Amino acid sequence: MAIVTLTSDFGLEDYYVGAVKGTLLRLTAELVPPPALVDLTHSLPPGDVEAAGHLLAAAAPAFPPLTVHLAVVDPGVGSERRILALAAAGQLFVAPDNGLLTPFLEDGVAYAVEREDLFLAAPGATFHGRDRFAPVAAALLCGERIDELGPRLEKPVRLPIPAPRREDGLLVGRVAHVDRFGNLITDLPAEWLPDDPVAVRLGTHRVLRRVRFYDELPPGEPGFLVGSRGTLEISVAGQSLARRWRIDRGERVEVAPATDESGGAGTVSANDRS
Amino acid sequence: MAIVTLTSDFGLEDYYVGAVKGTLLRLTAELVPPPALVDLTHSLPPGDVEAAGHLLAAAAPAFPPLTVHLAVVDPGVGSERRILALAAAGQLFVAPDNGLLTPFLEDGVAYAVEREDLFLAAPGATFHGRDRFAPVAAALLCGERIDELGPRLEKPVRLPIPAPRREDGLLVGRVAHVDRFGNLITDLPAEWLPDDPVAVRLGTHRVLRRVRFYDELPPGEPGFLVGSRGTLEISVAGQSLARRWRIDRGERVEVAPATDESGGAGTVSANDRS
Amino acid sequence: MAIVTLTSDFGLEDYYVGAVKGTLLRLTAELVPPPALVDLTHSLPPGDVEAAGHLLAAAAPAFPPLTVHLAVVDPGVGSERRILALAAAGQLFVAPDNGLLTPFLEDGVAYAVEREDLFLAAPGATFHGRDRFAPVAAALLCGERIDELGPRLEKPVRLPIPAPRREDGLLVGRVAHVDRFGNLITDLPAEWLPDDPVAVRLGTHRVLRRVRFYDELPPGEPGFLVGSRGTLEISVAGQSLARRWRIDRGERVEVAPATDESGGAGTVSANDRS
Repeated sequence: MAIVTLTSDFGLEDYYVGAVKGTLLRLTAELVPPPALVDLTHSLPPGDVEAAGHLLAAAAPAFPPLTVHLAVVDPGVGSERRILALAAAGQLFVAPDNGLLTPFLEDGVAYAVEREDLFLAAPGATFHGRDRFAPVAAALLCGERIDELGPRLEKPVRLPIPAPRREDGLLVGRVAHVDRFGNLITDLPAEWLPDDPVAVRLGTHRVLRRVRFYDELPPGEPGFLVGSRGTLEISVAGQSLARRWRIDRGERVEVAPATDESGGAGTVSANDRS
Repeated sequence: MAIVTLTSDFGLEDYYVGAVKGTLLRLTAELVPPPALVDLTHSLPPGDVEAAGHLLAAAAPAFPPLTVHLAVVDPGVGSERRILALAAAGQLFVAPDNGLLTPFLEDGVAYAVEREDLFLAAPGATFHGRDRFAPVAAALLCGERIDELGPRLEKPVRLPIPAPRREDGLLVGRVAHVDRFGNLITDLPAEWLPDDPVAVRLGTHRVLRRVRFYDELPPGEPGFLVGSRGTLEISVAGQSLARRWRIDRGERVEVAPATDESGGAGTVSANDRS
Repeated sequence: MAIVTLTSDFGLEDYYVGAVKGTLLRLTAELVPPPALVDLTHSLPPGDVEAAGHLLAAAAPAFPPLTVHLAVVDPGVGSERRILALAAAGQLFVAPDNGLLTPFLEDGVAYAVEREDLFLAAPGATFHGRDRFAPVAAALLCGERIDELGPRLEKPVRLPIPAPRREDGLLVGRVAHVDRFGNLITDLPAEWLPDDPVAVRLGTHRVLRRVRFYDELPPGEPGFLVGSRGTLEISVAGQSLARRWRIDRGERVEVAPATDESGGAGTVSANDRS
């Protein structure tokens, strides 16, 4: 049973997603049953390679082994940037070599796709999603070995995303994603959180209340919890905390012993911009 | 042939929908062919349990028997709210016990899912869509009997939505949904409408023109018709009547004999805010 | 292996898309494996028949032979407008006879669907997507011959879209589509472009720089290239040129010898509204 996921910044209003899917189905017509096509998202901000990688890293573990993940956020389409095929955690990934697959590089084996015979003839050089990436994904779905696609690539492009770290008795990370509900999803692993009370700091905001789920929060009061990816998440029930505090991806997050803070447990001492 | 539909307020920009689909495919890997995954919508307003139920009630009848409908609008995720499995009209439903399935409760048989063995270990308690609901749906797709999932639930949570009614010679209902085109879809059954001319009242607005389809309406003139769900619908061709009249879900709708009205047939006597 | 694509202006928030898919799956339950349902888009501007045809013409060539394309942008739903079934380029199309299929009419064979036996009983006349178009598509998927659906239609409705042309030494076309990235996609075939330098004119704007792909453009500088459909496209890297220049579909585009222009190669002589 073949599965291919699709991730892009193509949006849902143009013909781009349809053309990629049509190409995948056309080039895997030998497979019975045909591959399941699963959209992860096509609504990434145009060109936002980091968001693509974050989303893929979050979703991929739910899929079965040998799933092929096709991800195209590709502002350099047509240029000399390479096409990457990568094996990681028992799954396969196809994406531009522009840092998109950064979360998978440490534990994956990467190949630079050089199989011109797979690429489709095309009028222009602006839609490699259809003309190059989809055929490569189709080849993998049909059983082509990843190490037949091209040479090992020792140094694929990596995004310079700072890793979460311990620093002067603090945990220091960043907001890695703001989700639809306005939750602030950080990169700080839940297992780093001490059992003792802590304060989570974002700029001038302090969050002291720890809960297990959103609904445990008093109305209007921010708190933090372990989110669905196993990282620290800061939230307020039924509202967008991102909008209330005007916080975007990249904002620095610190976790400090609560004893460093003057406010009592469960209070937010910061001036609330909302 | 297994079919599962998905309904949620997850949006299309996060990894949530993808993770649910991956989990469904991973846990039904034994099925050949794999289940068809059909999105109903993921764009419900966050937490809007009533909208989820309305949409599901409208779409489900189109699907074949034994379709599994997975619906997750779940502001109480992680709390003690139960997980509901429900058999109704030859189909199966999995959703939080928070009123979402209200339209199906009268004719359905509900079970409180208590099969901890099905639930997935998870770092946090914020994503039961992936960690609990999807595995329950997958079990049903794989042939698990619904009455093996847990005990009968005699009093599932119901939303207090007023039923349409006859009152003092009037039909009294409400706008149950405003669709993308701005049509006002009421809960008044078409078969309640008398053959004689009637006036449809929404606040200060009066609509006297009855048509069979939108295009029969003169440009700019509101009218009413029997909509696709078999209920009274108020519309204006090529425009959003909801925006023009600033009407939201819940607005009271009355149908009265046209003879009670002073305006001539086909006119709208109300002050039009557009 | 049966494939059906879906194109509409139903949006992603209502039950309409789900009901069409459910109907397709219900009426093709005999097929093993079931048909692959592929969304092209459901986010077309309400009633925008031309956009539907453009998108379908762009996406269809990627799909395998015998794919069934179901397209419903149907402001005249319920009226006497016909339902069209069309065979073109080895694929099948089902749509209202309202001009939507204009791009396929020249090389296609059209039939007026008159098979009342296929249509579903329905409470109202406002949702032929579910009640008529989906059953016709399902019949084709199940092997019904297109010429059994109704009589040949010699004069289906055509949109009066001007064709690109050569005029007084100029190439004259129009912006056929503005995509998500703000690229201006014209209808001028790439093979019409001479090898000699040319100037592309849109209103008061002049574009002289020709590139092969977006990333070749200097930051902020517009250029033109051969787009993914094989037509002239005008773009600026990493920005929306449509927004910057406030250009919509339909804008006249001219290509003239560059020698007619006073500006040097690669410059944009027009006043830039951005």
